[in-house]
Amino acid sequence: MQMIAQTPKPPYYAVIFTSERTDGDNGYSKMSEKMMILAAKQDGYLGVESARDAIGITISYWRDLESIKNWKENVEHTIARQKGRSEWYKSFKTRIAKVEKDYGFEKE
Amino acid sequence: MQMIAQTPKPPYYAVIFTSERTDGDNGYSKMSEKMMILAAKQDGYLGVESARDAIGITISYWRDLESIKNWKENVEHTIARQKGRSEWYKSFKTRIAKVEKDYGFEKE
Repeated sequence: MQMIAQTPKPPYYAVIFTSERTDGDNGYSKMSEKMMILAAKQDGYLGVESARDAIGITISYWRDLESIKNWKENVEHTIARQKGRSEWYKSFKTRIAKVEKDYGFEKE
Repeated sequence: MQMIAQTPKPPYYAVIFTSERTDGDNGYSKMSEKMMILAAKQDGYLGVESARDAIGITISYWRDLESIKNWKENVEHTIARQKGRSEWYKSFKTRIAKVEKDYGFEKE
């Protein structure tokens, strides 16, 4: 179940991944779930948020640039990213951003 | 139609707004559309990306912190944000982040 990520006090980092999918599942759902579980085990992982309708947006939060780099170099993740280019995505954009400030609201 | 935003070369800023909606529309869709149009007219606006399923994620991109501040202080936007707290959102989180790096992919 997707929720708002419970991230610590800034600063920390966000990897914003925005994508347009190709038609059909082509093994995407299974791999996506696998990557979510694997990412959560990485050192420096802080949380993830994801939503999709016409486009998909997945934001993963990380302690620092070092933990983002380590996750990018993870072998299983690298294979998944290659499948992303060949099978699942028509186009995507990845943005690495430093969260400087955050605030929230919750109804009582 | 939601698309991947065509943002300039970093650095620039992202306002990441993640939310859980209350039940029903309650005037949300009309106001949301109005705010998208109004935001796009602001100085420093660079684009927006949005998707919703279990949670909603809307990311607006801005030239600098000054343009984010001006948009936050816009009177119509301030009224819409108040309605957000009273009517449309169970909870939300806003994160202000500096995009340091980006890269993309597009199928030929």
